[in-house]
Amino acid sequence: MNLLIISTGGTINKLYNELTGELEIGESVARKIYSLARNNLSAQEISIINKDSLDMTDKDRGLLTDTIKVAKEENIIVLHGTDTMDKSAAVIVQNVQDKKVIFVGSMKPYSIEKDEAIFNFACAVGFLRSNPANGVYISMHSLVSPHDEIYKDRNIGVFKPLNNT
Amino acid sequence: MNLLIISTGGTINKLYNELTGELEIGESVARKIYSLARNNLSAQEISIINKDSLDMTDKDRGLLTDTIKVAKEENIIVLHGTDTMDKSAAVIVQNVQDKKVIFVGSMKPYSIEKDEAIFNFACAVGFLRSNPANGVYISMHSLVSPHDEIYKDRNIGVFKPLNNT
Amino acid sequence: MNLLIISTGGTINKLYNELTGELEIGESVARKIYSLARNNLSAQEISIINKDSLDMTDKDRGLLTDTIKVAKEENIIVLHGTDTMDKSAAVIVQNVQDKKVIFVGSMKPYSIEKDEAIFNFACAVGFLRSNPANGVYISMHSLVSPHDEIYKDRNIGVFKPLNNT
Amino acid sequence: MNLLIISTGGTINKLYNELTGELEIGESVARKIYSLARNNLSAQEISIINKDSLDMTDKDRGLLTDTIKVAKEENIIVLHGTDTMDKSAAVIVQNVQDKKVIFVGSMKPYSIEKDEAIFNFACAVGFLRSNPANGVYISMHSLVSPHDEIYKDRNIGVFKPLNNT
Repeated sequence: MNLLIISTGGTINKLYNELTGELEIGESVARKIYSLARNNLSAQEISIINKDSLDMTDKDRGLLTDTIKVAKEENIIVLHGTDTMDKSAAVIVQNVQDKKVIFVGSMKPYSIEKDEAIFNFACAVGFLRSNPANGVYISMHSLVSPHDEIYKDRNIGVFKPLNNT
Repeated sequence: MNLLIISTGGTINKLYNELTGELEIGESVARKIYSLARNNLSAQEISIINKDSLDMTDKDRGLLTDTIKVAKEENIIVLHGTDTMDKSAAVIVQNVQDKKVIFVGSMKPYSIEKDEAIFNFACAVGFLRSNPANGVYISMHSLVSPHDEIYKDRNIGVFKPLNNT
Repeated sequence: MNLLIISTGGTINKLYNELTGELEIGESVARKIYSLARNNLSAQEISIINKDSLDMTDKDRGLLTDTIKVAKEENIIVLHGTDTMDKSAAVIVQNVQDKKVIFVGSMKPYSIEKDEAIFNFACAVGFLRSNPANGVYISMHSLVSPHDEIYKDRNIGVFKPLNNT
Repeated sequence: MNLLIISTGGTINKLYNELTGELEIGESVARKIYSLARNNLSAQEISIINKDSLDMTDKDRGLLTDTIKVAKEENIIVLHGTDTMDKSAAVIVQNVQDKKVIFVGSMKPYSIEKDEAIFNFACAVGFLRSNPANGVYISMHSLVSPHDEIYKDRNIGVFKPLNNT
């Protein structure tokens, strides 16, 4: 499976800076995660934007859209902050119809507790292995859903299905 | 998604016993992994057999088959040693046609390095989220494949696609 | 060895709050560390102040002094932020002459990377095992020195000996 | 402080070999631990013998003795399996009077759970910082004691003081 990973920053990539005592967007953690595929994934990776998703602008989303449009890979994972993941996904879905795009993030930085980041990323990989319909999805907390059928419950920090019936 | 997890032992569940200096099959690690779903998985879990998969007998495989047959859940993940995962899967596929069964293991015990175990398990969860056809699958090293389209390359300890063309 | 551990907060005790995205002073990590002594330490633990050491006031230092003065234990480890550890130590030394007091902190929170916190704490324990002279010491980055013979090099985040000749 | 670290193997250095499913003596973990001193330790490191301490012979102990005798460093930490640490220490003490030698090991491999290994090693470093009398010591589970005042309680896997009064 050819896979493009586009890292845009977000909590998943935050690192502790011991000189400032602050968390900062660091290098993408994607490689550390997809190396668990032991060469069964032909993954390419690019980093753009590198922001907390609350700071992401329309221009940033335009850049993300363009990056996805020109990609030759059909399967794309976007590492993205959880706060505006849905907003970015809504922009992508209007501009990209010929690919499978999955947004992945985590509530905790990989550098603090890697489990959640690995889990959310791997759920996206497993979903892609099913050869799903083209579309824009979000993979969080075991859900892998079309972007408009899932939301972040901000009170508890958990993604939940919309219309959970 | 209702999910039954059947733990049969295997390397994924091994723990270091510091008094003997040996690795032993411990309690199932499934709960530690599926808790990352933050209540988005209705998972039930049972432990049977609890063996290194090299020691698994025909009788053990009969018990595994029966356990799957009587399960009310349609989605089943089997934690299993990697050495005879394919052999057990071949028995199940002859006896179960109405379920989605995915075998998951890892080369390294979760207690030594949890990354691989989380990754392989989560790929299975993501694949199940796609609502795949009934069948018996193996989820290892980012592949989630029908049980007879994947094999363990014992020289390097990596699962690979059969007919990798 | 009877040991009193006084936790005052500091980076060593910080936890990531995933709802706010901020690091906060959490419960003292001392128990997690001294449990490695496997019951060879009779440790009592109290938490006071619970601040980033940059926010510590004269009143806080008064409370710390009083807590140490009334302690029945001769051996005392103070978990403290690294930025004003020297300042607090200078207050203690003027008021306490009958005890062995060692300040311990870490540049990284235990919850992010526990290694440094365990290392600095254990150096203090090993030093106390030598039955040192009464005094006020700092244990950081393998040094265990009288409080006025060590300083924090803020450019690199490392404690260094004063008069390193 | 100039420090020589002599690694002889032991559980502390064991690694899981995923192809055989066995634990094997790996490369010394000392560097990973003493790097926490952030250049405050001038440590040299050599690896000899590389055995489970149950397999250590008189000849091996002779080599260890000779290695310590010719060392120019006054402070020496010996990484050693816990089962015969006392036996090796008894040989060293008869042959070396001009150095501070501390045996360090752990019940669990660093590669499985690094906490105990870091703790035991750092207790030795902290003890050396007190400039103790020349002698042969064991640093385990928070105790740093002359080699003949400490023993391994094999029923619980914990080092205890002899004549704990």
